[in-house]
Amino acid sequence: MLRKVKAAQYGCGKMSVYLMRYLLEKGADIVAAFDVNPAVIGKDIGEIIGGGKTLGVVVSDARDAERILAERKPDVCVIATLSTMADVGEAFTACARNGVNAIATAEEAIFPWNSSPAITAELDALAKQHGCTLAGSGYPDMYWGVLVDTLAGSLHKLTRIVGSSSYNVEDYGIALARAHGAGLTLAEFAEQLGCNNDLGSRDIAQKITTGEVAPSYMWNQNGWLCARLGLTAVSQVQKCLPMTHATDLHSSTLGMTIKAGCATGMSAVVVTETAEGITLETQCIGKVYAPDEFDRNEWCFEGEPDVTITVDRPATVELTCATLVNRIPALIDAAPGYISTDKLPNNVYLVRSMESYVKG
Amino acid sequence: MLRKVKAAQYGCGKMSVYLMRYLLEKGADIVAAFDVNPAVIGKDIGEIIGGGKTLGVVVSDARDAERILAERKPDVCVIATLSTMADVGEAFTACARNGVNAIATAEEAIFPWNSSPAITAELDALAKQHGCTLAGSGYPDMYWGVLVDTLAGSLHKLTRIVGSSSYNVEDYGIALARAHGAGLTLAEFAEQLGCNNDLGSRDIAQKITTGEVAPSYMWNQNGWLCARLGLTAVSQVQKCLPMTHATDLHSSTLGMTIKAGCATGMSAVVVTETAEGITLETQCIGKVYAPDEFDRNEWCFEGEPDVTITVDRPATVELTCATLVNRIPALIDAAPGYISTDKLPNNVYLVRSMESYVKG
Ligand SMILES: NC(=O)c1ccc[n+]([C@@H]2O[C@H](COP(=O)([O-])OP(=O)(O)OC[C@H]3O[C@@H](n4cnc5c(N)ncnc54)[C@H](OP(=O)(O)O)[C@@H]3O)[C@@H](O)[C@H]2O)c1
Repeated sequence: MLRKVKAAQYGCGKMSVYLMRYLLEKGADIVAAFDVNPAVIGKDIGEIIGGGKTLGVVVSDARDAERILAERKPDVCVIATLSTMADVGEAFTACARNGVNAIATAEEAIFPWNSSPAITAELDALAKQHGCTLAGSGYPDMYWGVLVDTLAGSLHKLTRIVGSSSYNVEDYGIALARAHGAGLTLAEFAEQLGCNNDLGSRDIAQKITTGEVAPSYMWNQNGWLCARLGLTAVSQVQKCLPMTHATDLHSSTLGMTIKAGCATGMSAVVVTETAEGITLETQCIGKVYAPDEFDRNEWCFEGEPDVTITVDRPATVELTCATLVNRIPALIDAAPGYISTDKLPNNVYLVRSMESYVKG
Repeated sequence: MLRKVKAAQYGCGKMSVYLMRYLLEKGADIVAAFDVNPAVIGKDIGEIIGGGKTLGVVVSDARDAERILAERKPDVCVIATLSTMADVGEAFTACARNGVNAIATAEEAIFPWNSSPAITAELDALAKQHGCTLAGSGYPDMYWGVLVDTLAGSLHKLTRIVGSSSYNVEDYGIALARAHGAGLTLAEFAEQLGCNNDLGSRDIAQKITTGEVAPSYMWNQNGWLCARLGLTAVSQVQKCLPMTHATDLHSSTLGMTIKAGCATGMSAVVVTETAEGITLETQCIGKVYAPDEFDRNEWCFEGEPDVTITVDRPATVELTCATLVNRIPALIDAAPGYISTDKLPNNVYLVRSMESYVKG
C-alpha cells in the first residue's frame, strides 16, 4: 500500500493508550476514535496516549460510529471495549456494515466459533457481504497460540499439551475483573462461576453456546489450537476454581479491598480430547496479584521428546497490543469474513512502516 | 502425494538412529542408506535403529551413492555425516545430480550463504538444473531460528536480541567435539580457535568465506535471522572462548579424560549490527558436560516490551531429528535450488502420515 494505513480506535480505555501509540509509531494515521464514557468523549487522543501532544483527533460518541466510519473510511478499526462477542458485536457490526476491517482485543474473539457460533456466523456473513475481515488478537494469540503451534513443529510425537498462564486482573478493566470473580466470597464464586464444574462435554458446550455459561479464555484457545494443529476435538470440559490470598488485597480496578480468603480471581482449566489422541490441558489464572506475584506463561509438550518453554514475567499488556497491531497488515489483506487468526499467516515484527506490509 | 514418501539416509551414525526411526514412524519408506565406515556398511538399517527388527535395507558404501540414488529415486535424502558445507558438498552433489531433494544436519547448512557462498552457489545451480531442493535443518532451525522470528512478531519495538544455547558435545559425533576444541589445552585452544577473536567484521568475514576460519554455528544463525526478519547486516564479528571445568571430565566421544582446566568445549559469541538498528548477540556453548550440567536455551528480546523465553533441558538430539524430518514435506514442495529454511514455510507437527502433507 503506498499511502499510510488509516486506523480507527473503538474503545479508549487502558489498552487504547498502548494500541494508539503503537499504531502511530508503526506509521498508521488515526482518523477516528470512539467511546461511550462521557468522561472520555471529546478528549483529544493525544491526551489519552499521554506525552503532551495534541493530535487533532477527538474521541466521538460510539453512537456516531457508523456515520463517522462511513465518512472517514479507515482501513482498520481496533476494538478494545469489552471481553465477549456479545459485548463487541455492535462494534464489529458497525465496522462490517461499512466494509471496515476490524480486530478486537475481546478474549472470546480469538476463536468465537466454539462459544458464540450464531453471532460469529452473522458477522462472518456481514463481513463477506461488505468485503472486509474481522478477527480477534492479543496476548493469547501469540503466547497461547502461535507459539504453541510453532514449537509443536519440532516434536516427533505429541500426546499432551499442558499450558498455564497467569495475569494480573489489575492490569485490565472492570469487565475482566468481574469475569474472573475477583472480590466475590467463595460462596458467591461457587454459585456464580463454579456451579458448572461438573457438567460433561456436551452439556457445557450447549450452555456456553446459549450464553448460560461464560467460556473461559482457554475454552476458545483450545478451539484455536485444534483448528491450527489440524486436530478434531471429541470432548471439551471446563472447570473454574477460585484463587485466594492469605491477607487482604486492595484492587484499584474494583475500587475495593478483597478480604483474605475471598476470591482474588479465578483459575479456569479446560481439557480437550481429540480424535488424534492428543490431549490439550490448558489453564489460565487471572487474579489480583499480591505484591510478590508476577505474570507467567509455561507450556509443556509431552511426547517425543518432552519440551517445556517458559516466559517469565511477560509484559502482558504491551504484548497484547503489539501482537494485535502486528496482525493488521495480514488482516487488511485477508479474505473477507470472520477470519480467526488460526487462518491467518503468523504475525511478523514490523521492521518498516505498516503500509509497506500491505499487499492489496 | 498418494504413495508413501521414499527416503534415503546418508550417514548412519548417532543421529541416523533417530532420523531413520522418525522417518519410518511418520510413514516414509527408507529405500537406501549410505556410510563410509566399514563397520557400518553392510548392516541392516533395522540393526542400526535398534528394536530387533530387520528391515531389508542394507547400508551401502557411500561411493555407490550416485548409482543407487539414480536407481531407487528417493523423494528425499537425509544427510547426517559431518558439520560443514565442505564436508557435505559431495553428498549434496550426489543428490542434486540425480534430482533428489536433500536436507542435512550439517550445522553450516542452515544458512551457508554467509560462510561458504561459492559451494552453496554451485549446489544451488546444480539443484536448479536438476529440479530439486537442498537445505539444512536441525535444532537451531527451530530453537535459534523459527522460534525467535515467531516471538519477534509480538513486539512493538526491537533493539537487541540476545540468545544463548548450550549442548553436550558427548551427545554428538567426533566432528562436533573437535570443532569445539574439546580436550585441547588452553594454549592449543588459543592458537587453534581463539586466534581470530580480534578480527574486525570485514576481515573475519573474508577468512570465513575462504575457509581459513571456521564459522561458529551462530555465524550462520545470525545470517538466517537477518534474512528471515528482513534485516540488513552491516557488521558481524565472532569470538571463540574456551570453557573449562574444575575437575577432570571423561569424554566417551573423544575417548579421553579432559584434565581440569583444559578446554571442555567452546563458547562462541557472534554479534551482528544491522542497518535497521537491531543488534543480534548470540552465543552457543558446546562442551563436555559435568554430571550436573544440562542443555539450556534462552532468548531475550530487548525493546518494547522486553521478553525472555527459556527452554530448560531441551532434548537437543531428538529435537534436531524431529525438526528436520518435519521439514521434509515443505522441502519436497519447495522451488528448486539451495533454499535455506528461512525461505520455507515454518515446519508443522505432522499429525498424519508425511505424504499427506506433500502437495506436488
Ligand atoms: N544441526 C543440528 O542441530 C545438529 C544436531 C546434531 C548433530 N548435528 C551434526 O550432524 C552430523 C552427524 O552427527 P552424528 O552424531 O550422527 O555423527 P556420527 O555419529 O559421527 O555419525 C556420522 C556418520 O557418517 C559417516 N560419514 C562421515 N563422512 C561421511 C561421508 N562423507 N559419507 C558418508 N558417510 C560419512 C561417519 O562414518 P565415520 O564414523 O567412519 O566417520 C558416521 O558413521 C554431525 O556433523 C553433527 O555435528 C547437527
